[in-house]
Amino acid sequence: MAFKKVVAIVRSKVLERVEERLIDLRVKGISVSRVKGYGDAAKFFRPEWEFPFARIEVFCEAGMVEKIVEAILDTAHSGFAGDGIIAVHPVEMLYDIRSKSGVVVE
Amino acid sequence: MAFKKVVAIVRSKVLERVEERLIDLRVKGISVSRVKGYGDAAKFFRPEWEFPFARIEVFCEAGMVEKIVEAILDTAHSGFAGDGIIAVHPVEMLYDIRSKSGVVVE
Amino acid sequence: MAFKKVVAIVRSKVLERVEERLIDLRVKGISVSRVKGYGDAAKFFRPEWEFPFARIEVFCEAGMVEKIVEAILDTAHSGFAGDGIIAVHPVEMLYDIRSKSGVVVE
Repeated sequence: MAFKKVVAIVRSKVLERVEERLIDLRVKGISVSRVKGYGDAAKFFRPEWEFPFARIEVFCEAGMVEKIVEAILDTAHSGFAGDGIIAVHPVEMLYDIRSKSGVVVE
Repeated sequence: MAFKKVVAIVRSKVLERVEERLIDLRVKGISVSRVKGYGDAAKFFRPEWEFPFARIEVFCEAGMVEKIVEAILDTAHSGFAGDGIIAVHPVEMLYDIRSKSGVVVE
Repeated sequence: MAFKKVVAIVRSKVLERVEERLIDLRVKGISVSRVKGYGDAAKFFRPEWEFPFARIEVFCEAGMVEKIVEAILDTAHSGFAGDGIIAVHPVEMLYDIRSKSGVVVE
């Protein structure tokens, strides 16, 4: 089974709704941290740079990536500068600490 | 020399012991940040979602991955839901800022 | 168009100057979070472990990696232990939430 990591940088104000959508998709876990700024506007308006954003990290089966991306796009999209991004990263190995089982992915 | 990134999401309460084990392994550095929730239980018990977890990020030589994973599994495993996960990611380049030397990995 | 993720762990005190340099390079966004410790000295001096560091994450076109790495090396280098590291990670897909457009990278 292949795994991927999805990282999304979204406005803090949409975080709760994104989380709810991801829980509905039954993802097994989400890591959220507060980050400083992400925005096209940063280079013109320094203050915007400081706007609060959230970084969401989800490890998931490869087959779930599309649904997760859709859910985030759907919830985080406003059409204005600073909506953020979603990136998909490869995962080479994934271990479940509870069962101590590891999966070689590649 | 090949490098990897190991990311672990563990309960906050085991963080200190995990750090000690990794220092014993002489890893050259660890980044730790507080994150919101990771747990199988999230979809059933929303409150659990808020439990404090720690995200540990370690850059290491590929040959160290196995020992690092073992150390984390050993220290963070309780057998209960919410023990967290460990993921191994590829690294394409790694630079040491102190020596300004870079290593092309792939 | 290929995308990469650059992750840098630098001393907190150089963060502002690194940000300014990256804005000058017109990167479209930076995520910054506070992290605990990164340092060669960690295994000898436990207290150093707690020094404040910043984790900078930049998603960029592959062609920008070299300039971004140079800018960070230039600004974050002191020559002393604990200067930190820069890592380059592969990105498989990147989505712009504002335009809802996705790019398959690999």
